[in-house]
Amino acid sequence: MKEILRPTTLIESARLNAALGLDVVLASETFQHTGSFKFRAAYFVASRIPQQILIAASSGNFGQALAYACRLLGKQCTIVMPQDSARVKVDAVREHGGRVELVDTRRKTRKERVMELAAEMPEAYVASAYDDPLVIDGNATLGIELATCNKRFDCVVAPVGGGGLISGLIAGFRQSDVKMRIFGAEPLLGNDAARSLRAGHIVASETEVPTIADGARTSSIGTSNWALIREGVTSIVEVPEKTIIEGVRLLFSAANLKAEPTGGLAIGALLAAPEVFRELKVCCVISGGNVDPELYAQILREEIKT
Amino acid sequence: MKEILRPTTLIESARLNAALGLDVVLASETFQHTGSFKFRAAYFVASRIPQQILIAASSGNFGQALAYACRLLGKQCTIVMPQDSARVKVDAVREHGGRVELVDTRRKTRKERVMELAAEMPEAYVASAYDDPLVIDGNATLGIELATCNKRFDCVVAPVGGGGLISGLIAGFRQSDVKMRIFGAEPLLGNDAARSLRAGHIVASETEVPTIADGARTSSIGTSNWALIREGVTSIVEVPEKTIIEGVRLLFSAANLKAEPTGGLAIGALLAAPEVFRELKVCCVISGGNVDPELYAQILREEIKT
Repeated sequence: MKEILRPTTLIESARLNAALGLDVVLASETFQHTGSFKFRAAYFVASRIPQQILIAASSGNFGQALAYACRLLGKQCTIVMPQDSARVKVDAVREHGGRVELVDTRRKTRKERVMELAAEMPEAYVASAYDDPLVIDGNATLGIELATCNKRFDCVVAPVGGGGLISGLIAGFRQSDVKMRIFGAEPLLGNDAARSLRAGHIVASETEVPTIADGARTSSIGTSNWALIREGVTSIVEVPEKTIIEGVRLLFSAANLKAEPTGGLAIGALLAAPEVFRELKVCCVISGGNVDPELYAQILREEIKT
Repeated sequence: MKEILRPTTLIESARLNAALGLDVVLASETFQHTGSFKFRAAYFVASRIPQQILIAASSGNFGQALAYACRLLGKQCTIVMPQDSARVKVDAVREHGGRVELVDTRRKTRKERVMELAAEMPEAYVASAYDDPLVIDGNATLGIELATCNKRFDCVVAPVGGGGLISGLIAGFRQSDVKMRIFGAEPLLGNDAARSLRAGHIVASETEVPTIADGARTSSIGTSNWALIREGVTSIVEVPEKTIIEGVRLLFSAANLKAEPTGGLAIGALLAAPEVFRELKVCCVISGGNVDPELYAQILREEIKT
């Protein structure tokens, strides 16, 4: 496992620190296999189950990661993706040998389509992108890396979609016996995790929300994730769409880092709620870098209306 | 010295390898202090001379690096830059506390302006961005890193402008007692180094050429560099403008790496002369990442006419 994974890339930039008025270290998963942290969990799951065929719903990065993990392990997978997924993500799944099923999410949820496929293929394993103890263990490898790296910080900020990443971080720091404040960064438009924390139980959005952070469009965090999040997360910052975009632009201009919109969430959280992070040395997890060139050009030119 | 420098970032990507049909490892200097390899030499020079004031000509990255190195060391510098330098590079020099002198290179060379300033400030050290044994020693730190890293490759491909980077690589591999084939990647539009290798002596272009690779606009390699290049470089690949741009786009789409045009030269060389690299495992040096968002958006949208 450890030999397959790429260590996260730690980046510091004087210009980024000056722009934010904070001391920041980036933990970038954009150079992980298949360009996002999702490979950690995908490989962990695919290598630990006996099944040869896997089915999963994914807004893209988990699908890509699972397809590549299955190729490395000689297994097969089918990925159910929303019809409006970033083109690069659909192409990448196919390039890695995965089969793609596109679904119009206004008519049928991805979950419904996964269940139909599972009925057709009873020998297959249905893999969740986040709500699975194996996924949390896979993502915990990042928490362990951060807990044992040679950088010092007071807190970690990570994007929240289904909750797989942040619950993995919590688990990883626990396994390393390191106390750490962990903050979530969630799109304001799809703030089900923040609402869940306030309510004290899982709150689901009625539909998947059209946030630009396409890795955080899931309508609800998972139950395995919630068990860790409710106790382990300090708070969740809700980031407006324009601030997510500003985060992506700042990573480009001040740190030379290409991030996808979901990857801009953690920096967006620092911009949206500076008072929360004052005086703290912050580690921001940049979850992935897979973004269409056209969308990225729009972000750089500030052409997106929010 | 070693504690100040950031180690180069080694990146591998299955998609990049598939696109190139080659086994490639990227050595990215885009996350070095100030976003390019130039900081290695700048800090080396500024920390080893007794003078408190430095003057240098720079298309941008060396200026930025020298300004930041001088700030860290409590020294001062003036950077002479072409009027059409990338805006981000001019801003960055100023942000790091450097003084900028813009010069219209159609009327006066940067060198002439540097000489005028040197006459006005006799106590200052005139720093060359490439033609100086201290610069070569500074850049040699990258060669040493590559010679002693845990990746295996058969050759290194690096951009050639003034020749400071590639001569430093040659010096670094020599100091490490590691034999390595080293290829240059130079814009076809400004191919003075390739012509020099063919002629057996330094050939200079009459003016600075308007290649998109603004780090390689220098009209001639330096004499200290030439001494190493003539013996240590296997060959220099001349890369057309459109192939430089293709290299930048490929790094974006297949490796999630933001590179400036000069940083796209090494991948451009693989695209321009695949027959040279067939069957070789290649290490490509990505020299820097500082590029204006507007120019980068044009590159992503293929809007640039060459």
